[in-house]
Amino acid sequence: MTLQNVQSFAAGRWIGTDDSARVIHSAVTGKVIAQAGNASLDTDEMLDYARNVGGPALREMTFHQRAKMLKALALDLSKHKQRLYDISFATGATQNDHLIDIDGGIGTMLVFASKGRREMPDDVVYLDGAVEQLSRNGTFLGQHICTPLRGVAVHINAFNFPVWGMLEKLAPTLLAGVPAIVKPATASCYVTELAVQIMIDSGILPKGALQMVAGGLGGMLGQLTNQDVVSFTGSADTALMLRSQKHILANSIRFVAEQDSLNASILGPDASPDTPEFGLFIKEVTREMTTKAGQKCTAIRRVFAPDVLVPAVLEALQESLSKVTIGDPADDATRMGALVSPSQRADVLAKAATLGKEAERVFGDPDNFTVHGASAEKGAFLPPMLFHCATPDTAVNVHEVEAFGPVSTVMPYRDLDHAVELVNKGQGSLVASVITHDAQVARLVALGAGAFHGRLYFNNRDSMKESTGHGSPLPHMVHGGPGRAGGGEEMGGIRGVMHYMQRTAIQGSPDILAAIGNKWVPGAREIDHADHPFTRSFHELEIGETYKTKERQISLADIEHFAEFTGDTFYAHMDDAAAKRNPFFPGRVAHGYLLLSFAAGLFVEPNEGPVLANTGLDNLRFTKPVEAGDSIKVHLSVKHKTPRNEEYGEVRWHVTLTNQDDELVAEYELLTMNAY
Amino acid sequence: MTLQNVQSFAAGRWIGTDDSARVIHSAVTGKVIAQAGNASLDTDEMLDYARNVGGPALREMTFHQRAKMLKALALDLSKHKQRLYDISFATGATQNDHLIDIDGGIGTMLVFASKGRREMPDDVVYLDGAVEQLSRNGTFLGQHICTPLRGVAVHINAFNFPVWGMLEKLAPTLLAGVPAIVKPATASCYVTELAVQIMIDSGILPKGALQMVAGGLGGMLGQLTNQDVVSFTGSADTALMLRSQKHILANSIRFVAEQDSLNASILGPDASPDTPEFGLFIKEVTREMTTKAGQKCTAIRRVFAPDVLVPAVLEALQESLSKVTIGDPADDATRMGALVSPSQRADVLAKAATLGKEAERVFGDPDNFTVHGASAEKGAFLPPMLFHCATPDTAVNVHEVEAFGPVSTVMPYRDLDHAVELVNKGQGSLVASVITHDAQVARLVALGAGAFHGRLYFNNRDSMKESTGHGSPLPHMVHGGPGRAGGGEEMGGIRGVMHYMQRTAIQGSPDILAAIGNKWVPGAREIDHADHPFTRSFHELEIGETYKTKERQISLADIEHFAEFTGDTFYAHMDDAAAKRNPFFPGRVAHGYLLLSFAAGLFVEPNEGPVLANTGLDNLRFTKPVEAGDSIKVHLSVKHKTPRNEEYGEVRWHVTLTNQDDELVAEYELLTMNAY
Repeated sequence: MTLQNVQSFAAGRWIGTDDSARVIHSAVTGKVIAQAGNASLDTDEMLDYARNVGGPALREMTFHQRAKMLKALALDLSKHKQRLYDISFATGATQNDHLIDIDGGIGTMLVFASKGRREMPDDVVYLDGAVEQLSRNGTFLGQHICTPLRGVAVHINAFNFPVWGMLEKLAPTLLAGVPAIVKPATASCYVTELAVQIMIDSGILPKGALQMVAGGLGGMLGQLTNQDVVSFTGSADTALMLRSQKHILANSIRFVAEQDSLNASILGPDASPDTPEFGLFIKEVTREMTTKAGQKCTAIRRVFAPDVLVPAVLEALQESLSKVTIGDPADDATRMGALVSPSQRADVLAKAATLGKEAERVFGDPDNFTVHGASAEKGAFLPPMLFHCATPDTAVNVHEVEAFGPVSTVMPYRDLDHAVELVNKGQGSLVASVITHDAQVARLVALGAGAFHGRLYFNNRDSMKESTGHGSPLPHMVHGGPGRAGGGEEMGGIRGVMHYMQRTAIQGSPDILAAIGNKWVPGAREIDHADHPFTRSFHELEIGETYKTKERQISLADIEHFAEFTGDTFYAHMDDAAAKRNPFFPGRVAHGYLLLSFAAGLFVEPNEGPVLANTGLDNLRFTKPVEAGDSIKVHLSVKHKTPRNEEYGEVRWHVTLTNQDDELVAEYELLTMNAY
Repeated sequence: MTLQNVQSFAAGRWIGTDDSARVIHSAVTGKVIAQAGNASLDTDEMLDYARNVGGPALREMTFHQRAKMLKALALDLSKHKQRLYDISFATGATQNDHLIDIDGGIGTMLVFASKGRREMPDDVVYLDGAVEQLSRNGTFLGQHICTPLRGVAVHINAFNFPVWGMLEKLAPTLLAGVPAIVKPATASCYVTELAVQIMIDSGILPKGALQMVAGGLGGMLGQLTNQDVVSFTGSADTALMLRSQKHILANSIRFVAEQDSLNASILGPDASPDTPEFGLFIKEVTREMTTKAGQKCTAIRRVFAPDVLVPAVLEALQESLSKVTIGDPADDATRMGALVSPSQRADVLAKAATLGKEAERVFGDPDNFTVHGASAEKGAFLPPMLFHCATPDTAVNVHEVEAFGPVSTVMPYRDLDHAVELVNKGQGSLVASVITHDAQVARLVALGAGAFHGRLYFNNRDSMKESTGHGSPLPHMVHGGPGRAGGGEEMGGIRGVMHYMQRTAIQGSPDILAAIGNKWVPGAREIDHADHPFTRSFHELEIGETYKTKERQISLADIEHFAEFTGDTFYAHMDDAAAKRNPFFPGRVAHGYLLLSFAAGLFVEPNEGPVLANTGLDNLRFTKPVEAGDSIKVHLSVKHKTPRNEEYGEVRWHVTLTNQDDELVAEYELLTMNAY
């Protein structure tokens, strides 16, 4: 392998190293394989390029266009993933680890692409929550919106996932419409460089949307403004150092921190060795200790078991860990590769020694273990090390000191309250898991420990086949945690996109809100059109276009016939005396579904046309009973339009049914698919 | 007036001042009226009391119970509001100012009480967002929940709204289930003390839910943990000093900052002097300059008008401001009272002098103005001071220096882009307003300036009668802003409650999720019960209780009859050839409303019973067409229950319609009201 000169991608140009570059060693052979760093990088130019070239280009695109861009990027990365696999072994990672990093990163991008299409509008403004009624007559309303920050996202990533770590931040950032400057950890930045190169070469991204710094950031953080975001993943110490900068604090610059933490797993009180949960627990703990050689911010550091089960847990874990083959990560037989660097290995050993003051090492001797196909001296190898701490109430280090490697400590608990108390001693973590088949155990842990954890993972015989693992942050769910874990949040679907947008409360008239959100709201202008809206194509229909039907009277015969025909002979429709006893009704009333059906009869244009199907209905509320002799009429307004594919899109109609006195009797949103 | 010795309420006891107390002057007469402060307050004991007495008591209550508590508190405060009015004049505030502070605070609490009942469950876990499908077969799902932090909220409030400032933070905190320690600004803490005393005396709050520190907080902030929250309102300098504490940063302690900012108002390009918007603009600016003597964090500091309209704006504002009577706030004729203290007055004069370097003072001479019924020398009075800055592009102070009093600067803009650029020069503010009747102007400002503002307020002829004013934060809408405004958010309905809760991603089997959320999810256990669920009362019904109907076949005659009866002769039901041309249908299909109606016919138990009414329907989706000859059957499961009043509650049913091949054809949530 020749020495790789890791370049930065700055202001549209690839820029090589300078004299300040640091060398990077192979985790497996210890050889120098690359160097990275350039102290003369012009960070001002990079920020300008992001703000003035990348930002405007991204903001021109709608959420759907950005989502399609993410999908294209992910598919392109997928085509090149063998190149990423090949280069990643030198970080110490096995092929299974690559799946988490590379395929996991690509999958994350695809989920954001999908959610962007399904859960965001084909527009540049995102509406957050419902319209708020701020006035009696509805002439003054509220609506929260989100718009992209007009700055840049600076992503400072950890060494352990050079691809996923970048993509899980990049996907929501780009979907928000904000350009990113990515700073990977130097130890594995050559993998990130290749992924960036693939993305840049694909030509899919607008100019300025993505830049990368190999090496240090220089003075970049001191040049940020309130429109920028720092998203950091790494150690608590580094996070504290960065977020304490006066410039960051004085300008209220968003600083999202995701720190490794003392994550825990609890074996449920019900999960005795004869249950499927016991074996599942052993499997989860083993996997979390050994995947990525334990270098995962979500790895299980603390293992809690009912005190009577501790011996069985220790025995089963030792048995399971003894089967873990350590060695050359490129070898298929290898279950656990190397740590990323000798210094990381030394750090883990030092932390393990600290744990050893309170806990006994029951498995894994760092001075005596077998490495297959590689040199234990030259590579940064370690065995999985299992500790047992019998006194978790008085021990301190086990709840505070994280050995960021294949290291966990087993501890006993007396009862569930005790387990919750012990888990919370981590003072905030990314994830805790409970292996239990007792749903009430789950509820108690959620109530007692939820406030200390960003994620609670439950698994048992029902979910084990499809579960994704204690340690896997999923793009749908928030990743981050309080306190020790940094207090930040990432991902969580659209929630993660919001970290790169500003929420703004909008107050104004219905017309103002409708124009800002491209969504009709009650009270906004109704547009009359000579043609029936069902004869107009998706693109022809205007927001606010309204069709008003004639009236139809409901007779007692209608009600009786509907009851007989459908079989719905509920007393409120059939028995006047019983209906009168009911707090809602003046006497016999028409069926709600009769009203819906007659309403459709009133507003439908029957001939073949651009309306393809009624696909659903939302937020139906019956607001006033309709009796025999009453009439109904319908207003049908185009509320919102969302393209769905190349041929048709969804039209959301606001529908109101009023009676002969113009009183509202029902209101709902109707969904149709309409051809373009 | 005798000297009031303002007490703190700590660990259940009222504790007086000690030698460290500072005196407080009347804003109107300059006389010493009170003193506050006790350096020996035991902050450790206060925190313990909140955490170990107040927190557990609040967490025992459901959101509905806490909401009812808020309502009772608000109604009790309302009964005593005359006492609060009486004591508030000494802060310099007029009766109109009291309405904002005292009635506004009570109103805010009532809105949170109402939203707590309507938008949160009668439970201790809040579900955030939808169930996430994390697996193909649905055995492993995701759901975000929020649970109360297990610490204490420390509220550090500003002097200007001693009642509203407390209640707008206290309402969401208590609704979340978190105890509060309130620290009012010393200058007006005697008003807050009375409001706290009224609330404590009411006996409505559980012990430990509310404590108050008059004077300094001592070392309290250094004793907080990751489970605590600091919510600060005040100056940028104080916020920076507090949030920079290493203890706060190292423990990721939530610090919500709401700082005064350089809020702006824009007169729309369309709002010439002959439009209703022009007069409205003058009224809004005048009100924001003079209410509370301009001591409002949301007050308009920068006034932007189209350059050609600047002379007219200056003239109209001077005319309007000249009518503002300054004097004894207790006098009904007074339009503007005093600033809170001589030092605040001196600060405003110093800042105004700084503004004067770049802008010309065109109205209001602090050395020559009339004070009615009070002494200009002894009270902290100032006239409204209007400045004109002709060079807003090069001026710096006007966009950076806030004179926290009745001071605003008028500036010209060339076009809307220029206006947006100027408004954004505030580098983040709580609110900007635009007075315009042009909805496209509103959209452009929202896109261009949204990222710099926590709130955008639009007003015009359509909304002016019901609008609530540029400067009024409403409990429904977020209050806070990026950058200079502190980067925090308060209120915004349930969003504001979340600041005192931890969001946790839950992953697990359907049964686990259902138990944690007290809400059935697809795939969770279905409970069979011998009796039809419509015969069982609200309280008898169990989550997951499921009724399965027999099948009913749909005939072509059914479809044709339904079309004829309802009038819904849409081609997909009537014209086989046309339906076949449609991308959704294999040929003629049954109406969706026919399916809903037949489904009701299948599941309804007709006799009088606990089901009172079908009140609505949510999330209906038709997933597969039903043709003549197909059959449907229904599963009806109790999904969620919400008490609504003393007699009945809402039952949300999950309904699935499947065909003869067990394929899903429709799915929805049905709402009924059921007697207890």
